[in-house]
Amino acid sequence: MRVGLADTTFARADMAAWALEELSGVEVERYTVPGMKDLAVASKKLIEEHKCDIVIALGWVGKEKIDETCAHEANVALQQAELMTSTHILKVFFHESEGGDMVKVAEDRVRKHARNALALLKGKTELSKNAGQGKRQGYDDASTLQKH
Amino acid sequence: MRVGLADTTFARADMAAWALEELSGVEVERYTVPGMKDLAVASKKLIEEHKCDIVIALGWVGKEKIDETCAHEANVALQQAELMTSTHILKVFFHESEGGDMVKVAEDRVRKHARNALALLKGKTELSKNAGQGKRQGYDDASTLQKH
Amino acid sequence: MRVGLADTTFARADMAAWALEELSGVEVERYTVPGMKDLAVASKKLIEEHKCDIVIALGWVGKEKIDETCAHEANVALQQAELMTSTHILKVFFHESEGGDMVKVAEDRVRKHARNALALLKGKTELSKNAGQGKRQGYDDASTLQKH
Amino acid sequence: MRVGLADTTFARADMAAWALEELSGVEVERYTVPGMKDLAVASKKLIEEHKCDIVIALGWVGKEKIDETCAHEANVALQQAELMTSTHILKVFFHESEGGDMVKVAEDRVRKHARNALALLKGKTELSKNAGQGKRQGYDDASTLQKH
Amino acid sequence: MRVGLADTTFARADMAAWALEELSGVEVERYTVPGMKDLAVASKKLIEEHKCDIVIALGWVGKEKIDETCAHEANVALQQAELMTSTHILKVFFHESEGGDMVKVAEDRVRKHARNALALLKGKTELSKNAGQGKRQGYDDASTLQKH
Repeated sequence: MRVGLADTTFARADMAAWALEELSGVEVERYTVPGMKDLAVASKKLIEEHKCDIVIALGWVGKEKIDETCAHEANVALQQAELMTSTHILKVFFHESEGGDMVKVAEDRVRKHARNALALLKGKTELSKNAGQGKRQGYDDASTLQKH
Repeated sequence: MRVGLADTTFARADMAAWALEELSGVEVERYTVPGMKDLAVASKKLIEEHKCDIVIALGWVGKEKIDETCAHEANVALQQAELMTSTHILKVFFHESEGGDMVKVAEDRVRKHARNALALLKGKTELSKNAGQGKRQGYDDASTLQKH
Repeated sequence: MRVGLADTTFARADMAAWALEELSGVEVERYTVPGMKDLAVASKKLIEEHKCDIVIALGWVGKEKIDETCAHEANVALQQAELMTSTHILKVFFHESEGGDMVKVAEDRVRKHARNALALLKGKTELSKNAGQGKRQGYDDASTLQKH
Repeated sequence: MRVGLADTTFARADMAAWALEELSGVEVERYTVPGMKDLAVASKKLIEEHKCDIVIALGWVGKEKIDETCAHEANVALQQAELMTSTHILKVFFHESEGGDMVKVAEDRVRKHARNALALLKGKTELSKNAGQGKRQGYDDASTLQKH
Repeated sequence: MRVGLADTTFARADMAAWALEELSGVEVERYTVPGMKDLAVASKKLIEEHKCDIVIALGWVGKEKIDETCAHEANVALQQAELMTSTHILKVFFHESEGGDMVKVAEDRVRKHARNALALLKGKTELSKNAGQGKRQGYDDASTLQKH
């Protein structure tokens, strides 16, 4: 199994380093692009040209409104790339507008999604035991709701 | 007939359990992904690789603005997946912004759409008897309007 | 010539009935789906599997913000379906936010677009005599503007 | 060389007439549709079925918010049609929200874009002499900026 | 290696000139179109018909709301073109809403992205040494964040 890792020079932290730690022992192909709007085609190339079975796309979203617009456009394109290749691309974006301890949030999100990628490679029901469990990446899990 | 069921670990309730009850006796393939933006490719894989005749995609939308943006992106991609496969994917999303008794609304929506899926499998006019009847999933039906 | 008619159970009026009256004497294939986001794939199937030469997609948009978002997503997908099939799909949506006499507006819009469908089937310049004439569906026509 | 001209019955002025004057002596295929959301598939058909080398799509945008949403959807689809056919479709939209002398603005925009279409047919660098010159359609050109 | 350069007559500065200086010694194909919504198909043609290995798409966004909408539509289409061709198209847009010394910002952005294009042509890890370094085009780089 080969995992693609697409990251950017725009990001203000080395998101790929956290992912690489989680992917220790797994074959990884890295692709670094300028910004998040370049991630979709890089991810598609990782799948098609570099034979990755899944891709983790790491994006960092600035605090301006235009950054959020770019993030939206990138997420649309990343899902398009998934559909064109029938392959999962995990869209791991940290938004500066989230505030708080930015590095802590970003690291938690990257690490948990790297583990999600490994789980998805095991099969389509590997994550079913956690279905509906309010899992969050970047934060503590949300509470689950019981039927009234 | 085989029904695909795509659900998420993000959801705060086990939406798939309600659908499985409604689909009792029907062959079901399940696919659990992290979040709603992963549902489109999972649904496409259920159709193409797991030979599902229809898919029910179960999404849970958090209360933040970014969650609504993700829901929008996911719905665009899910319709793209439908067009690429010429197969129905019912987009069953509960939004926390709806408020009220969240579990009750989500359960009603899931159960009714599971029944819609079974109806659509019977043929393109199976639901015609209910056309224009103000059917709602999650709530009571809306009133129908008479011509003045 | 065969006309496809896609409608929903969500609608609060039987929009298809008005269209069927206008299409009297024409071969019609009907496809009823739950909501407007299901219209795109139904329309594509009417074209590809049921050999329709044109489709009239009838949508009813609720008064909430989420309904408008759904309408937007549906319209994007319907145009995608048109491009994938190189076939017209008339997007006939009534929005509750329009207010006024809802049934009157909806009926006028449906009937006029059913006639537009028949005109488009006759050829690409059939409507040219009305080009730039401020034609409206749902309301009286707008005034035309003369050059100053 | 053959130019496609797609226009609507929704428009409040005969936009095609202005284009036809500019295209005098050129082979033109016209396609009239109800509204701007029908322009994308009409343009694709002009290219594929009527062998047009370029298309001018003429849209008129009403003053309501829903009209602007439709214009956005139409522009997304028109660019999709361009990509599917690898052929230019000039998107010539007049928005009532622009105010001012509507006919004057619309006419200027249509005429200048008709000339742009003819230039693009001559080759990919035909417009390079005007690159960065602040060219506007509908208004006087914008000022160009000098480096400080 | 051949670099495509797509630019517009709408821009208020000769963005291509700055790129051409950075690309000195590299084979370049230029394509000038009226506005930013024409860049996607031009870029696709540069890749498919003119055999470019990468494209730099230069857009200038006016200060009105409609200009930002156009920029959004153009960026969606440009990413679609990238996915259809599996080729990078760097989306280099200057927005008048950024204010400040417009020419200085635009020039810095164009020059840095021209260098990014050359780096991407060298391979997928050429930019990895700058990953997570807060690189900005148009401005000074952002600060990087250390883990707490």
